[in-house]
Amino acid sequence: MSIRTIENRACVAYGIKDVRHVNMPVSYSSEEQILVRVARGGICGSDIHYYQHARAGMSILKNPLVLGHEFIGVIQAVPPASSLKVGQRVAVNPSQPCNRCALCLEGKQNVCRSMKFMGSAQFNPHVDGGFCEYVAVSEAQCVPYADHASDQVMVFAEPLAVAIHAVHQAGDLVGKNVLITGAGPIGCLVIAAALNAGAAQVIATDMSPRCRELALQMGASMTVDPSDEAATASWAENGGYFDVCFEASGAPSAIASTASFTRPKGTVVQLGMGHNTVEMPLGLLLVKEIKLVGSFRFVDEFTTSVRWLESGRIDPLPLLSAEFAQGAVVEALELAGDKSLAAKVQLVFA
Amino acid sequence: MSIRTIENRACVAYGIKDVRHVNMPVSYSSEEQILVRVARGGICGSDIHYYQHARAGMSILKNPLVLGHEFIGVIQAVPPASSLKVGQRVAVNPSQPCNRCALCLEGKQNVCRSMKFMGSAQFNPHVDGGFCEYVAVSEAQCVPYADHASDQVMVFAEPLAVAIHAVHQAGDLVGKNVLITGAGPIGCLVIAAALNAGAAQVIATDMSPRCRELALQMGASMTVDPSDEAATASWAENGGYFDVCFEASGAPSAIASTASFTRPKGTVVQLGMGHNTVEMPLGLLLVKEIKLVGSFRFVDEFTTSVRWLESGRIDPLPLLSAEFAQGAVVEALELAGDKSLAAKVQLVFA
Amino acid sequence: MSIRTIENRACVAYGIKDVRHVNMPVSYSSEEQILVRVARGGICGSDIHYYQHARAGMSILKNPLVLGHEFIGVIQAVPPASSLKVGQRVAVNPSQPCNRCALCLEGKQNVCRSMKFMGSAQFNPHVDGGFCEYVAVSEAQCVPYADHASDQVMVFAEPLAVAIHAVHQAGDLVGKNVLITGAGPIGCLVIAAALNAGAAQVIATDMSPRCRELALQMGASMTVDPSDEAATASWAENGGYFDVCFEASGAPSAIASTASFTRPKGTVVQLGMGHNTVEMPLGLLLVKEIKLVGSFRFVDEFTTSVRWLESGRIDPLPLLSAEFAQGAVVEALELAGDKSLAAKVQLVFA
Amino acid sequence: MSIRTIENRACVAYGIKDVRHVNMPVSYSSEEQILVRVARGGICGSDIHYYQHARAGMSILKNPLVLGHEFIGVIQAVPPASSLKVGQRVAVNPSQPCNRCALCLEGKQNVCRSMKFMGSAQFNPHVDGGFCEYVAVSEAQCVPYADHASDQVMVFAEPLAVAIHAVHQAGDLVGKNVLITGAGPIGCLVIAAALNAGAAQVIATDMSPRCRELALQMGASMTVDPSDEAATASWAENGGYFDVCFEASGAPSAIASTASFTRPKGTVVQLGMGHNTVEMPLGLLLVKEIKLVGSFRFVDEFTTSVRWLESGRIDPLPLLSAEFAQGAVVEALELAGDKSLAAKVQLVFA
Repeated sequence: MSIRTIENRACVAYGIKDVRHVNMPVSYSSEEQILVRVARGGICGSDIHYYQHARAGMSILKNPLVLGHEFIGVIQAVPPASSLKVGQRVAVNPSQPCNRCALCLEGKQNVCRSMKFMGSAQFNPHVDGGFCEYVAVSEAQCVPYADHASDQVMVFAEPLAVAIHAVHQAGDLVGKNVLITGAGPIGCLVIAAALNAGAAQVIATDMSPRCRELALQMGASMTVDPSDEAATASWAENGGYFDVCFEASGAPSAIASTASFTRPKGTVVQLGMGHNTVEMPLGLLLVKEIKLVGSFRFVDEFTTSVRWLESGRIDPLPLLSAEFAQGAVVEALELAGDKSLAAKVQLVFA
Repeated sequence: MSIRTIENRACVAYGIKDVRHVNMPVSYSSEEQILVRVARGGICGSDIHYYQHARAGMSILKNPLVLGHEFIGVIQAVPPASSLKVGQRVAVNPSQPCNRCALCLEGKQNVCRSMKFMGSAQFNPHVDGGFCEYVAVSEAQCVPYADHASDQVMVFAEPLAVAIHAVHQAGDLVGKNVLITGAGPIGCLVIAAALNAGAAQVIATDMSPRCRELALQMGASMTVDPSDEAATASWAENGGYFDVCFEASGAPSAIASTASFTRPKGTVVQLGMGHNTVEMPLGLLLVKEIKLVGSFRFVDEFTTSVRWLESGRIDPLPLLSAEFAQGAVVEALELAGDKSLAAKVQLVFA
Repeated sequence: MSIRTIENRACVAYGIKDVRHVNMPVSYSSEEQILVRVARGGICGSDIHYYQHARAGMSILKNPLVLGHEFIGVIQAVPPASSLKVGQRVAVNPSQPCNRCALCLEGKQNVCRSMKFMGSAQFNPHVDGGFCEYVAVSEAQCVPYADHASDQVMVFAEPLAVAIHAVHQAGDLVGKNVLITGAGPIGCLVIAAALNAGAAQVIATDMSPRCRELALQMGASMTVDPSDEAATASWAENGGYFDVCFEASGAPSAIASTASFTRPKGTVVQLGMGHNTVEMPLGLLLVKEIKLVGSFRFVDEFTTSVRWLESGRIDPLPLLSAEFAQGAVVEALELAGDKSLAAKVQLVFA
Repeated sequence: MSIRTIENRACVAYGIKDVRHVNMPVSYSSEEQILVRVARGGICGSDIHYYQHARAGMSILKNPLVLGHEFIGVIQAVPPASSLKVGQRVAVNPSQPCNRCALCLEGKQNVCRSMKFMGSAQFNPHVDGGFCEYVAVSEAQCVPYADHASDQVMVFAEPLAVAIHAVHQAGDLVGKNVLITGAGPIGCLVIAAALNAGAAQVIATDMSPRCRELALQMGASMTVDPSDEAATASWAENGGYFDVCFEASGAPSAIASTASFTRPKGTVVQLGMGHNTVEMPLGLLLVKEIKLVGSFRFVDEFTTSVRWLESGRIDPLPLLSAEFAQGAVVEALELAGDKSLAAKVQLVFA
């Protein structure tokens, strides 16, 4: 096996408020791996958590970690037998399930317990991410897209895959009335994905006027401030109005409200991660036989996401708040961490 | 319309610890209704709650209420056009959905908001139950059964219907590993129903040694005291052992434990009603994409229940703790309310 | 009950090639029914069959029948308690299930055996349709729509409901590769409905270049002449290419081909009605475990259809070939019956 | 890698009516494979077809093939790291999917296009079967079972897995009315499996009185000669009686009848393989929206099958017609091929 090493600069988390743009050569197998020159990355909540707290949920930073699991690029080198070509633009799927365990062999790769998800400190050694100039990946991770598609759009492939997976978790949405609580980037992408999956109407709630405005731009037919009880009162009448609720805020009050707003035998998809435990109105869920189901990452929805973005069926650009050069990663993380100012912040790699 | 009235003695709840065996004539339409002479009734948790607290969950006693929604009898009179015959033994389905609302016309009768469930104070006027000598019902409520079946067995038709509905809520059980937390009468009937639906094995937990013994008699392959952490520790390993959990205790600690014991993408069916709100490990449900779904009453499972009992496929008699004559309803309620002594207590009508 | 009768002119089928525009007063209950002044109707395949053969499938014309089950109009009179208002524009749902039988109470109204579908000779007496100036219907049949929507568009509500029901029969289409064999009006509406339900791409086949052109206008990413074996050969490779096939031609060769073109464990939805029996490649369906399911009329998809047309999410106008005044119904039927010339032909009522 | 070779006698198909009991040494990797000493095998339809026609369906004998995919044995040797022990009795799963292709990674191993199913000439080189003294398999193929279980029973593990898979294809059977057309060994095992999955009643049809008698022994509540039209007439009334039909005969008349006998929106599972193409009542399937789905081999049902047999939940012994020593394989095949005399014939390996 022929291992090659090249120069590389990467955005690396070392600890709380300690992310650095450093030289970090990358090694790859020229006979097995694809070398991608990264063009652009999107900053996600977990990147912000590593920056602010040196942890993201249960994943604690123990060693330096290259951040980033939302990124696209151009193929720089391919192994001999590859069907891919140098110069091809690709979205890179950061998900690397083992494809051998019982869960993988049932098609449940997103809950594989040996998952190597890029840019994550879940396991030790950590799995480096894609916020760097060059990254070595497998051919299966590379999803090519057409030249006419813009980088700014295509870098939404990963978060949109999360949103499409949530739509899958909800089951059939054709003709359904849908509520989305929490209109951050993921909530807003779920709005667009639910409409693309046939929802009759999508209504969104968020405390922030800026987020509500983004929700409208992403296709919501109406938005509501969840503290406006007069506006939401009718949703709980006659047993509940919505066929499906996507809970994308993680806020305990929003989580509790979905049981009231959802129709008997409706579905609540939980996307928002906040506290590990939450006070839930279990009695109401029971007598209404509401189905509550989590949504975590994605399986084959990454490819669907690339196709929907490439074809222009979904326009994510209202969510793009700012872009920074790779060297300004700290400034980018600071802005992205201020939810009152920014939705999605992107990094441009030279 | 020809209304007839006959003498009748009934078990009526008037208030806290105030249930009386009284004369209460019953009127019925001889042209539309079936008159059933009640043979036997089973005391359920809600009967006990009305006796002890003058309420059951959100249903508060405002007027005298004839108790009882588990009962069987013999047809005494039929309207002219009925296909049923006088003398036929029947299990009576206490469920009376409106069959006109949107939910009913989607086949979701158990969550009908105009449901008139017998023996319930949910609505005002209350809907009287079947703990009386004669009861007038519709033809649709009567499910005939064969002469060879015993009254003691057939009066389990209603609670077994609840258990079979829970099995339906779980989806396919063929070959599945199943846990049941809480081995009261409903939990024990779920054990039998899950095995009849093809479960590979069923394990039950309960604090009470007596309940654990009943669980084994009803078919559990193993029982465990939930406070025995050594015994349950392995269930949480490798992401969780059980494909499906039925939570039939309503205990917060049991509810919380199901998220750990259930396999990624497994199912938890919530049957036990305890507190209205419960602290839930929502983060774990999310990352494991566990489906949590309530189970409330039943739809067409009542007929299946009668067929399974009639054919001897399920033997509920291990659950029968005692029987009393109708006049001893207070003694029966007292015994039934002591979970350390009794599982199911039946009333015999003369 | 107050029955009123008003003057009315209707398009009535009397026998083979014998459809007449005649005076036929309409009676209605002013206390129970909605009177609709019909604005526009769409000619469907069964209307053409009654005209050409005095039968449609198994439904044989025994008495004069007012044609038409695709129609819209304006409310002319309402009963006292109605929530609808005079002047409201409505699409009329021609489906009248009994809502009492076991199938209806399971939410399967489209296969109700007591269905009174308007404009059909299935039962005797026949159920008159809506190709007339005034029609009396129930409130449940009326689906209001906004003033901004055009009559030409909204009269597609019924056939689009058929297409959306087919999409429901297919299950989840998000990200799927879809084939539609037969690009007549229904096939073309399925193209649009499948894309609106999230299909990744939709390919259509039809012998007719005109139909293939319409398919492209309705959103197909590619069309193929099914006799062009070079073009279709790759679809059968590696076990089959498409996740879902909608067979909308009824042609035996197309029906047979779907088993080859569909992926193992994929789905074929049969919409096209041709011969009662067809030679099927059952061995291939078996070893590939393909699911074959029929699609017949619709359930609650009519409302979804109205919403999708009203909002402009689907534009059916490429399918509108011609329109005629009501008195020219024979000319309209003649044109509609020539598939080489016309897709959808509409009648305008004065 | 250490390859060892041992003496072995095997039942080998060479051509039409040419099956021989010959010496055929077996080689295996002592570091990777499990060596099983075969105890007993069951003769299946495909073994009979190779004997009678040198082909089974599309699989044509091109080279000598060791027959047999139903067999059990005792572990003789294990690789160093194995969790299995020498002396353990095991049922051997003959299914060897690639576990790498897209279908396998969706949990659809039974339709893997690189499947190496033992005892099959589907691919070239053929994959030898288990009708021999020693066979080398992977650890994943070995399912251990308890000492108390008899060989005669356990060798039904493979055909019962086929039956349980068919039950899975049907979806939820709890409380359902089930018809099985064709009461050969597979049809009879489906009777038992459907009852174990909760069916309310199972009725079976077969031309042969002997098969009908076996069906009753396997649990059918009633059997009918399909040529007795008086007996079957009521099944087609009111739209059809059965919720689910399993077609296990492959006979065109039986296949055609299922569309009449199945309730609207019911399910037909096709198991019987006969002609490649069959005349189907597609019009009736369409207007009743019946779901037709094939059932081919099995996925993880093999383990469930072993558990159900080991626990005595299903007793397959009524189906055991005769047993022969391995040297009498030709006599065994002759008897097994005469459907008027035999259901399942077993071979005993010394």
